[in-house]
Amino acid sequence: MEIRKVFARNLRRHRHKKKLSHEALAHEAGVDRTYISALERGVYGASIDMVQKLAKVLEVDPAALLDPRSE
Amino acid sequence: MEIRKVFARNLRRHRHKKKLSHEALAHEAGVDRTYISALERGVYGASIDMVQKLAKVLEVDPAALLDPRSE
Repeated sequence: MEIRKVFARNLRRHRHKKKLSHEALAHEAGVDRTYISALERGVYGASIDMVQKLAKVLEVDPAALLDPRSE
Repeated sequence: MEIRKVFARNLRRHRHKKKLSHEALAHEAGVDRTYISALERGVYGASIDMVQKLAKVLEVDPAALLDPRSE
């Protein structure tokens, strides 16, 4: 599967698990709300620095966000 | 650990496992040799698209390249 889709799906799932809105996750990570929304649509290929930043807020391993088998 | 260091270490290890030089990996992935060298020094935060591209050449899962416990 294309990596952006894997990341988008994992990002959305972990954000929902933490009961965070796009706005709340964006605020915690210090990025724009529209950027989070775009990442969840696979519009951009995030940098690994951004993956780490979002993983930290979501309290998951960065690698888990790129894992197609991640639950 | 900082994600760039994790990625740098995993990239180098898997490149060595495949017995590929910087040049050979760069050629296979369609990037510049100096870019591979820079990634292995943590100079840049690669995009997830680049992680996937390199993972494909190295025949590993993209997530494995961001896993600090990856062997």
